[in-house]
Amino acid sequence: MDSDYGVPRELSEVQRKRALYQPELPPCLQVRVLPLLPLFLLAATLRPSPDSRPRSVAWQTARRQIPCSLPCRIGLTGADGVYGAHVISHAFPHTYGQPLAHFLRKTANVPDATVISEHPTVRVGVVFCGRQSPGGHNVIWGLHEAIKAHNPKSKLIGFLGGTDGLLAQKTLEITDEVLSSYKNQGGYDMLGRTKDQIRTKEQVNGTMASCQALKLDALVIIGGRLCGINLCIFHLLVNDMTIIIEQVVGVPVTLNGDLKNQFVETTVGFDTICKVNSQLISNVCTDALSAEKYYYFIRLMGRKASHVALECALQSHPNMVILGEEVAASKLTIFDITKQICDAVQARAEKDKNHGVVLIPEGLVESIPEFYALLQEIHGLHGKGVSMENISSQLSPWASALFEFLPPFIRKQLLLHPESDDSAQLSQIETEKLLAQLVETEMNKRLKEGTYKGKKFNAICHFFGYQARGALPSKFDCDYAYVSSSLTYYLDISYFFAPAVHMASVDLKGKAFELLRNNSTNFLMEDIYRNPGPLQFEGPGADSKPISLCVEDQDYMGRIKKLQEYLEKVKSIVKPGCSQDVLKAALSAMSSLTETLAIMTSSSTGQSPPL
Amino acid sequence: MDSDYGVPRELSEVQRKRALYQPELPPCLQVRVLPLLPLFLLAATLRPSPDSRPRSVAWQTARRQIPCSLPCRIGLTGADGVYGAHVISHAFPHTYGQPLAHFLRKTANVPDATVISEHPTVRVGVVFCGRQSPGGHNVIWGLHEAIKAHNPKSKLIGFLGGTDGLLAQKTLEITDEVLSSYKNQGGYDMLGRTKDQIRTKEQVNGTMASCQALKLDALVIIGGRLCGINLCIFHLLVNDMTIIIEQVVGVPVTLNGDLKNQFVETTVGFDTICKVNSQLISNVCTDALSAEKYYYFIRLMGRKASHVALECALQSHPNMVILGEEVAASKLTIFDITKQICDAVQARAEKDKNHGVVLIPEGLVESIPEFYALLQEIHGLHGKGVSMENISSQLSPWASALFEFLPPFIRKQLLLHPESDDSAQLSQIETEKLLAQLVETEMNKRLKEGTYKGKKFNAICHFFGYQARGALPSKFDCDYAYVSSSLTYYLDISYFFAPAVHMASVDLKGKAFELLRNNSTNFLMEDIYRNPGPLQFEGPGADSKPISLCVEDQDYMGRIKKLQEYLEKVKSIVKPGCSQDVLKAALSAMSSLTETLAIMTSSSTGQSPPL
Repeated sequence: MDSDYGVPRELSEVQRKRALYQPELPPCLQVRVLPLLPLFLLAATLRPSPDSRPRSVAWQTARRQIPCSLPCRIGLTGADGVYGAHVISHAFPHTYGQPLAHFLRKTANVPDATVISEHPTVRVGVVFCGRQSPGGHNVIWGLHEAIKAHNPKSKLIGFLGGTDGLLAQKTLEITDEVLSSYKNQGGYDMLGRTKDQIRTKEQVNGTMASCQALKLDALVIIGGRLCGINLCIFHLLVNDMTIIIEQVVGVPVTLNGDLKNQFVETTVGFDTICKVNSQLISNVCTDALSAEKYYYFIRLMGRKASHVALECALQSHPNMVILGEEVAASKLTIFDITKQICDAVQARAEKDKNHGVVLIPEGLVESIPEFYALLQEIHGLHGKGVSMENISSQLSPWASALFEFLPPFIRKQLLLHPESDDSAQLSQIETEKLLAQLVETEMNKRLKEGTYKGKKFNAICHFFGYQARGALPSKFDCDYAYVSSSLTYYLDISYFFAPAVHMASVDLKGKAFELLRNNSTNFLMEDIYRNPGPLQFEGPGADSKPISLCVEDQDYMGRIKKLQEYLEKVKSIVKPGCSQDVLKAALSAMSSLTETLAIMTSSSTGQSPPL
Repeated sequence: MDSDYGVPRELSEVQRKRALYQPELPPCLQVRVLPLLPLFLLAATLRPSPDSRPRSVAWQTARRQIPCSLPCRIGLTGADGVYGAHVISHAFPHTYGQPLAHFLRKTANVPDATVISEHPTVRVGVVFCGRQSPGGHNVIWGLHEAIKAHNPKSKLIGFLGGTDGLLAQKTLEITDEVLSSYKNQGGYDMLGRTKDQIRTKEQVNGTMASCQALKLDALVIIGGRLCGINLCIFHLLVNDMTIIIEQVVGVPVTLNGDLKNQFVETTVGFDTICKVNSQLISNVCTDALSAEKYYYFIRLMGRKASHVALECALQSHPNMVILGEEVAASKLTIFDITKQICDAVQARAEKDKNHGVVLIPEGLVESIPEFYALLQEIHGLHGKGVSMENISSQLSPWASALFEFLPPFIRKQLLLHPESDDSAQLSQIETEKLLAQLVETEMNKRLKEGTYKGKKFNAICHFFGYQARGALPSKFDCDYAYVSSSLTYYLDISYFFAPAVHMASVDLKGKAFELLRNNSTNFLMEDIYRNPGPLQFEGPGADSKPISLCVEDQDYMGRIKKLQEYLEKVKSIVKPGCSQDVLKAALSAMSSLTETLAIMTSSSTGQSPPL
């Protein structure tokens, strides 16, 4: 490939200034003289093993301050339920059941803390796998700094052209020079990316062959959920290639924000995408309010989950946002959704408002039950090798009825081949146009019948995605990406058995959703549009974080610490010398609590994975 | 109308900081204690006339430093040729033939400068007329400051809901309080806007009635070319309503950048739009370079002229930009353009590049001769009252052949009713999709024939416009808008007789175009994409100006001064005591020059307007 990967780029004034930005490290990562401590290095030195192979460890988001080490069961959540603990422990012998690793502040004084003194030379490979997301380059930069600080003889080898380059062993050694024009810059163009996954046996074998041929001690895969991290590790697992399993580190870099748990707040890139999109949504809101004649239907890239749509709604306060998770939970049909929008348009028209902004996550189409069923049938027929032209004739009568009802442009898009995870090609399905068209038809009907007396309904449709993916990363993402190679996350193997279930979907019981719901009537009727402005690198707004992260209390470790404080307090009260009543009350309460927790714990590990 | 116009808005952190920004004044406007000196006030005080009515005066862009006053014929360019000077001078008795007005620096010492001492109380109306463009609110703010500084009893009356509100006399007095949450903010939502023009006799009469009923001394119309400024003044002119002609001030606020001449460098909003769009185009370029599998076809809002596309190309260096003016000049057909793009795709594929970015101005479709002819026929049939369904059957055989060749989506869009200036509904015609489809068909053909050996051609289409129109204005536009009520421009009445001619089109002999052409091969083949980053309000990039303005030498007054220096030099050399040879050479050269200039001047005033 006569490619431009890795060549120095001419930078604009803003880019040059950004390239000079030194990401801020969280205090917990300001250890010793090392700016960073990548996972595998830490694992290798923490617990030397006979074969001296590095290990993967799940730990808490690097952005948090972790003042002390807490023992905690390492988790491959969901996996136990599917495979049983022995399969997992066999596949991950150096990881499974290990305590959580914690980074300590420089000044922390923890008696049993392990001090790292060994600095072996390592060769680490890195590859972009999956769709570009702002911050990808900083993951590599952070990794490079950490490796070199540890041992200047260590090498970081980038694979050129994504997984194709990984299989073809096309490499570029990452140096300061190579990095210089990519620091804090958007895109994946330093190394490029191709396919989205390492899935087939050939791909897995090829990956192994490359790692062995290049004598790699570890491989870092930068990507999202769909695109490889889990898939790769999973496939290495099911192929029983335990020999390299624990050397593969996945870094969750995806704009979708759909890889998170109690340890990982969000994915690298999510913040930037939401800021860039919110800017544009706000501009459209202002436009709507200025001209007062259009309804804007805006579909947002973000795959199955509606995190991007939720965050953008919290940032820009559009009139409506239709979250896939809510539609799925309420089992709303396309007609229910159309009616909801039409009723909103009518209610607004009664207040003389003939404009509005509606956000739609790209995953919505798969959340609508009848569309999901139709897509499943189509994909099933694809799987059987039925050609695109013949699919419609082989649909079940019910699916066929829906299919024939739809406008031609949507039919064509629904017939596209599914993605590598069997989901529909969401970026290609113009749900916003379908909804706009259905709403227009219904409003025209109501106008004719006289039930609607407002102005003629006019819609303008947008899809925001590609224009944000390549954006310069926000300060949050620059910092987060830079330290994120020191960050991995719970593998949730049940992902692979329930591709249509939103595993890291929007939590309908979470505080972010609650905030949205509490404001939805105001948002709908009052046009209290909010404009966060364009992504800033200096001045106000430059340090802002996603609102959904701020309101969602994900301070898991903080809460565990709080619990320990309570336990200590009880201990200090209930000691020899306390009254019988105090002892009795404490005993009764703690007995009841432990019993409850025991039941909860056993049912949670024994439960079936969602289907 | 139960409208939200003029209500205080909740501002985000970035917006609040912006609201505190005090626009910078050019030195020439830092006169006395007055921050600004609106046109009509200046005109009124400069030359008191019997009826004491204010006058309009054309003068130089406020952003320029004008150190001294130069006499210059005031121009209604083009108008002389159409009407003859006597009609114009009759219609504009206080304006025609007057010297240019000049603002002087505080420190300037010009013997015959008029010092303003009278401060009459005035009532001024202001209305948004035409599509929103960033900076509109600052025009009102600047106007308000100037009026109040002049005489605190003066009043600025805003019309609510654009020209509809003007006719219905719906008003809101502009106060500091009203302005507070709209300073330096985007959109037109402080007052709103509705129709794009004041054109029919009823509209013109209604406007007059409103001005009289509200006892307005002047009316300021904020808008673009299509939307009213010229139309309004022109219609007032042809209706022979000279009574208010010279009280109407048009402020050129439009994202299109298509109102400019030697006195006005650009329109308010152009800078912001180009910055917001360039950010998105750059992101898409980065995206293209990261994944290397898509061609992005991006259509840019900007009406007939290609200024936005040219400026965005200079800012972001996409692989191709197809300027309407170039297509029109070379009389390229849709097939020529398709072939050009296909050849470029093929040349890039030979270098293993299967991605790219192509910019298309929304006005392109009207620049392609056969489409222009087709649109003219369609609009003609509209004018005759032929219904949309019947138009295709009444086209000439030639137009019909083209029409039938086109895909259904484009046919539907071409059949839309024309705009108020008889041009097509450019924002609704998806030229980018048409081109992408034609290129795909051709590339598939070449692939089949074996003449093209690259990867399958894949296109993704975008239309960037609505998401930029409501943006927070850049610092340039904040400043420019704030002083722009002190700025008007040559009326070019020939506009109205040649609606399809790009009057303020991209100058194919200009330096901006030259810069683009000189780099076009590099842009096409080398992927030297440039990313100016998101619109910044602080730090690098915050003070940048449009590249096309920087390279285009529009320093008209500066060059006139230069000429005067040459004349002075000749004078100082050729004086009593110089040699016969020197005198002879100077006489001969000056005689020849004056003769040439006399011929040029007479032919330029006598020429017919372009058709």
